[in-house]
Amino acid sequence: MQDIVVDLGERGYPIEIGFDLIGRNERLRALAAGRSVCIVSDETVGPLHAQALMAGLGDAPASLSRLDIPPGEGSKSWVMLDRVIGHLLERRFDRRSLLIALGGGVVGDLVGFAAAIYQRGIDFVQVPTTLLAQVDSSVGGKTAINHPLGKNMVGSFHQPKLVLADVATLATLPRREVIAGLAEVIKHGAIADTDYLAEVEAKLDDLLVGEPDALAAIVAGSIRIKAAVVAADEREANLRAILNFGHTFGHAIEAGLGYGEWLHGEAVGCGMVMAADLSRRLGGLSDAEQRRLTEVIVAAGLPGRGPHWGADRYLSLMETDKKAERGAPRFVVLDGLGRARMQAVPEATVVAAIEANRVATTA
Amino acid sequence: MQDIVVDLGERGYPIEIGFDLIGRNERLRALAAGRSVCIVSDETVGPLHAQALMAGLGDAPASLSRLDIPPGEGSKSWVMLDRVIGHLLERRFDRRSLLIALGGGVVGDLVGFAAAIYQRGIDFVQVPTTLLAQVDSSVGGKTAINHPLGKNMVGSFHQPKLVLADVATLATLPRREVIAGLAEVIKHGAIADTDYLAEVEAKLDDLLVGEPDALAAIVAGSIRIKAAVVAADEREANLRAILNFGHTFGHAIEAGLGYGEWLHGEAVGCGMVMAADLSRRLGGLSDAEQRRLTEVIVAAGLPGRGPHWGADRYLSLMETDKKAERGAPRFVVLDGLGRARMQAVPEATVVAAIEANRVATTA
Repeated sequence: MQDIVVDLGERGYPIEIGFDLIGRNERLRALAAGRSVCIVSDETVGPLHAQALMAGLGDAPASLSRLDIPPGEGSKSWVMLDRVIGHLLERRFDRRSLLIALGGGVVGDLVGFAAAIYQRGIDFVQVPTTLLAQVDSSVGGKTAINHPLGKNMVGSFHQPKLVLADVATLATLPRREVIAGLAEVIKHGAIADTDYLAEVEAKLDDLLVGEPDALAAIVAGSIRIKAAVVAADEREANLRAILNFGHTFGHAIEAGLGYGEWLHGEAVGCGMVMAADLSRRLGGLSDAEQRRLTEVIVAAGLPGRGPHWGADRYLSLMETDKKAERGAPRFVVLDGLGRARMQAVPEATVVAAIEANRVATTA
Repeated sequence: MQDIVVDLGERGYPIEIGFDLIGRNERLRALAAGRSVCIVSDETVGPLHAQALMAGLGDAPASLSRLDIPPGEGSKSWVMLDRVIGHLLERRFDRRSLLIALGGGVVGDLVGFAAAIYQRGIDFVQVPTTLLAQVDSSVGGKTAINHPLGKNMVGSFHQPKLVLADVATLATLPRREVIAGLAEVIKHGAIADTDYLAEVEAKLDDLLVGEPDALAAIVAGSIRIKAAVVAADEREANLRAILNFGHTFGHAIEAGLGYGEWLHGEAVGCGMVMAADLSRRLGGLSDAEQRRLTEVIVAAGLPGRGPHWGADRYLSLMETDKKAERGAPRFVVLDGLGRARMQAVPEATVVAAIEANRVATTA
């Protein structure tokens, strides 16, 4: 078991990483004591883990309720947000109530946002049950839903009071989702820590078969990196943007295919291949570094090539990406492995990086 | 012209109070410079003032767009929130964009909330054009929409970057809305400042005919009180709750009649009559003080008696009020005129205060 603290002053919070945290956790019981508590999960994860979580809470909460939403990216919507909020209002949840998000990134983003805006903000706890959510989305307070015109376009910065990353929950995770989570794991190494990247490379085979100790070590290492970046720049004024490495390309792929066709991590994996190529073209990575990063992405089982669209399609999809400012897309590029920076990039260079890393057209 | 600063550190902002601020304002031009700007108003206020505001901005914004929503409380809804956000996304507004809320409390609450959640938060400016919005809702960063199960149940604390209280815009305000605004004016005197209350009493006739200098003085005095309370307790951990004087009763009346049947200020006026009575029963106000407060409320043209419902109906409507915690309603009561505190009150005392101040049943 490891504890990591996200150092944000009065908004700071602990993250516990370990095994079987869901069924008994003193911090969670203390937070829930005497309050109305609602566990929101999805129809896949809820049946697996909600009972254990409720049993662990025991009689600490003043009242305890449960809600399972449909799984999948489609639930990050106005409709589902209203369903969560309606559930709370029907049960007369007040401003002291506590929400617990039990599930992957979709549940965490939706429930975090519901907590951010219910009666102008109530407390919530993240209990991430996917690798992606444990290493990335449950830490840092970004919450959001999607809009037909763009992903994560509506949301808040709202920090949880506690994050419980229970590695035991990853045992039931489909292999495809483990792989998707590895994209953010590799990203953390690439942008901030070559030792960690080397650890990921060394443990990759164990991670892919779900070896618990390897997973626990890698989850802890990723959270440590993410927590440090978030503590330095909570609201993404500058530094935090490096966490978007590979995401500008990745979001374009997700948007173009329709959300959910590729998992977010898969799109980010492919996006990092393009961003590594871009970094080399800009002189930030050597050929060998680019190859090393691309190889670990592909070895993890992530897609190494983007859809066969023309570069124009990619560019047009990027323009609605929220990282764009005044229409001129900026990119996170690497400055050697383990170091990242933001940079506006000439369009021709972006086009070259796309064309070198997409599936060839058959025309 | 007067300037008041809301002292909230990095979230602090200036409020300008004066005449004809809309048509030329240097602070607003400086804020808008080089950014995508959208003025959101309603179909009543937009045609009156949006042209002047756009002319005043001149060529400062990189782009300028306008949206008028239907007037009335019904626009504080998911649907209208989505309309504002869709308008911004269609025009590819980025995270540096600026929203301007031009109108009364409905526009300010809705647009402020849209700014709070658009791409996790963008800047906005309040240009309140009703007395109620100038003295109350435009200051302090409370934003919200309504839910079928409760008013202001979904929202954020999101401070504006600037508030322009242009008293000239009150010239076109219907008398009923001037009166409604006076409820919050009287409230500020009652909870915080007897000198200000005396000034309101002395200027009441001038205020009711819309005499500009009287309005300017009273607007400035109210904003000064509200800004001080907000600066001391931005997120309503304790002190700020005194601004809800009369509001627990008032919200019950609004909810029971259906929102919009009585104006918010009218319900608050009547709610303050009940809360003054409650304060006397609890020993906080003398008979003379209660009478004085009730008289100025009624002299302002506000309703002095609540709907004829039984006290049970009032109590049941109060239970969904968000100020309630764990189901036990607490009230803001006066501790002498000019001083307020929060207190849990025995139900029998609440019932007595209601029954003494509602329209008698004809049974």
